[in-house]
Amino acid sequence: MKDLTRVPAAEIAAWLRSRQLRAADVLEAALERIAAREPALHAWAFLDPERARHQAQALDAGPVRGPLHGLPLGVKDLMDTADMPTAYGSSIYAGHRPAWDAAVVASARAAGAIVVGKTVTTEFATFAPAATVNPHDFEHTPGGSSSGSAAAVADGMVPLAFGTQTVGSIIRPASFCGVVGYKPTFGTLSRAGVKLLSESLDTVGAIARTVDDAALMVGALCGRDELVDLARAERPWVGLCRTHDWRETRPEVATAMDAAARGLAAAGARVIQVDLPADFAPLGDAHGDILGYEIARNLGFERAHHNGRLSSRLRELLDAGAQVTAARYDRARELAHLARAALPGVFDACHVLLAPSTTGEAPVGLESTGNPVMNRVWTLLHVPCVTVPVATGPSGLPVGLQVIGRSGDDARTLAVARWIHERLGAG
Amino acid sequence: MKDLTRVPAAEIAAWLRSRQLRAADVLEAALERIAAREPALHAWAFLDPERARHQAQALDAGPVRGPLHGLPLGVKDLMDTADMPTAYGSSIYAGHRPAWDAAVVASARAAGAIVVGKTVTTEFATFAPAATVNPHDFEHTPGGSSSGSAAAVADGMVPLAFGTQTVGSIIRPASFCGVVGYKPTFGTLSRAGVKLLSESLDTVGAIARTVDDAALMVGALCGRDELVDLARAERPWVGLCRTHDWRETRPEVATAMDAAARGLAAAGARVIQVDLPADFAPLGDAHGDILGYEIARNLGFERAHHNGRLSSRLRELLDAGAQVTAARYDRARELAHLARAALPGVFDACHVLLAPSTTGEAPVGLESTGNPVMNRVWTLLHVPCVTVPVATGPSGLPVGLQVIGRSGDDARTLAVARWIHERLGAG
Repeated sequence: MKDLTRVPAAEIAAWLRSRQLRAADVLEAALERIAAREPALHAWAFLDPERARHQAQALDAGPVRGPLHGLPLGVKDLMDTADMPTAYGSSIYAGHRPAWDAAVVASARAAGAIVVGKTVTTEFATFAPAATVNPHDFEHTPGGSSSGSAAAVADGMVPLAFGTQTVGSIIRPASFCGVVGYKPTFGTLSRAGVKLLSESLDTVGAIARTVDDAALMVGALCGRDELVDLARAERPWVGLCRTHDWRETRPEVATAMDAAARGLAAAGARVIQVDLPADFAPLGDAHGDILGYEIARNLGFERAHHNGRLSSRLRELLDAGAQVTAARYDRARELAHLARAALPGVFDACHVLLAPSTTGEAPVGLESTGNPVMNRVWTLLHVPCVTVPVATGPSGLPVGLQVIGRSGDDARTLAVARWIHERLGAG
Repeated sequence: MKDLTRVPAAEIAAWLRSRQLRAADVLEAALERIAAREPALHAWAFLDPERARHQAQALDAGPVRGPLHGLPLGVKDLMDTADMPTAYGSSIYAGHRPAWDAAVVASARAAGAIVVGKTVTTEFATFAPAATVNPHDFEHTPGGSSSGSAAAVADGMVPLAFGTQTVGSIIRPASFCGVVGYKPTFGTLSRAGVKLLSESLDTVGAIARTVDDAALMVGALCGRDELVDLARAERPWVGLCRTHDWRETRPEVATAMDAAARGLAAAGARVIQVDLPADFAPLGDAHGDILGYEIARNLGFERAHHNGRLSSRLRELLDAGAQVTAARYDRARELAHLARAALPGVFDACHVLLAPSTTGEAPVGLESTGNPVMNRVWTLLHVPCVTVPVATGPSGLPVGLQVIGRSGDDARTLAVARWIHERLGAG
């Protein structure tokens, strides 16, 4: 019997569908791992083993529900659950019990997934960290804001977990923890029942053991068979993209990019250099203006009624956001609109881009979740991003690179990410 | 003293800011009107006069809070309020008390508005009507889904109310009730804390006594001074647009369009005919596919857990929506994307379009909220729409026409709508 805490979800799902394996056994393996490691990891905001066991028994006794039948799932605590408390990472909502499941949670359950519990998020998915540590080294941050989801998947607690990304909250923690993170094309998954921070940016996605697993999860939720069953990529054309923020990266990123270029070319990929247009340079600031304007309004109730229970970091973000004028917001949105329209040109000579997922391996310390500068522009551009672990840094921690595709071209982006992961995969 | 149940909000706001009038007096006029008429109208899902009185007293005792200082406001019961129950028009959520105010409600309160209560919505803002009647004739529908907001404003109960539009839920009820309805450019107002039905379509807006009032309300919430203080329109160029759904209209609409053409030309406008491109014809079906795909997922929890408490009409909508494949959804979104890109050509020779707000005056009967066919394409195109009452139909009920502008061109669209309302205004 293989180690169920390490086998890809897609394999487990196949065994569950063919009844070679019981959902109850998959779940017990997950719960054992959680029981052993959670005291050190702090990946979970809430766990309900008994409820999960009842669901596993029901699934084993009934028909196959769907593509996620019997798979244990972590749900980021930014997402509403009717049967578990949802606090959005804030003491304001400690013990809060939503009246519904978020739409994607309802879809996951309808597809047969078993929600094991709620994974830790930073405060309202912003920058103030929670207690989760990096499973590879407890002195290092797991990244944020999907801290618990990334740590739980990396540690073998669950094969699948939800993440959300407004700046870099799926790709960064997945990269820091050495797992696969997939931010789909903007709008692929519903945000109903997910605490809204920025309507222009918030994106729901998946953290998983393999690219196939992440694709399976998202594909099952949005009804896209081409994701549930990814086609094979052949000799992809890959554009190495250092981005306008390359100066922020540490040496391990350059090493990983160079090694990837050599390794992919040797494996048969066509590898070219791709520079982003000069007028993409202000997109980082544009992202900040859009986030600021929107989050100051979207957390307006919390700011008015619970300001003392917000972290000083979040208060500063909201105060600064409240100063962003509608004119500045409109300019930022126009810039993003023009950049999205110019994006096909960037992909003229390649199927996907390959860019750093982070500025380096997970930094030491838990007071920050790390720098999201390598993510914000791709979030703003609404393109699919898939981070795969390809190297290790000076502290022996994972370093990921992200595969970036055209808007809507998720299936090919994932296929190429799998191709790259199979050839360069580390961690 | 003028009749506070009829004076425009902008005038009342000016008197309140200069302290010529007390918020308490404005509120009492509203509460008196509500007490007298609500038993017949059923415009409100929840009322809290005492809480409103306390807020009015606090506003009168303190500094001027903002542009909406002291204005009584109706909040559609699709929008969360922390101090009032929010049922989204469904028995599933009877008595449900959200943990927060929707972002726009928090913004309105921060700007000084007094939330008098929650206005009736149809079931989850879809097609199953509630008990609200048309204040002009109780045998006729007020339209939906913002039924209570339109009826309450039309009847003088409050000067301002929130509406939301996914198909035709602001423009249609405002037109049926003979008031101004304003659906801003998509994305102008936040949807955080508003029950999401379709992320691609849901739009928050205002129902008001005058165009200035609607602009004031929306402008205050999104920080756009050019809406709070509208510029004057001069001899606008107006494109009369019969749309691809003209065959659905009843004779009073043709009469109103013809009279508008003559009246506006006589008043100095340049009036031309504008036909929508032929490839806009399938946009109505595209709207339906997008709505279906998204609402089936967004009400997935309710469908799974409370199916028996959904109306048969909504169940049918969700069942049909669940059959919309991702491929069909993508085609519909691509069609919408291309049409939005082609839209500037439609405005080549005019500042705004003038089109029917509805297929006619409010139909008799309360079993339907009327036909939204004249609204769905504009909702899908994300353009600003302002309905103004300009005529009456065969039953003596109001008939509105909507002024439609380019995406983002809300200030000019509103200015022209005011110009038209001042010259043609009826009801």
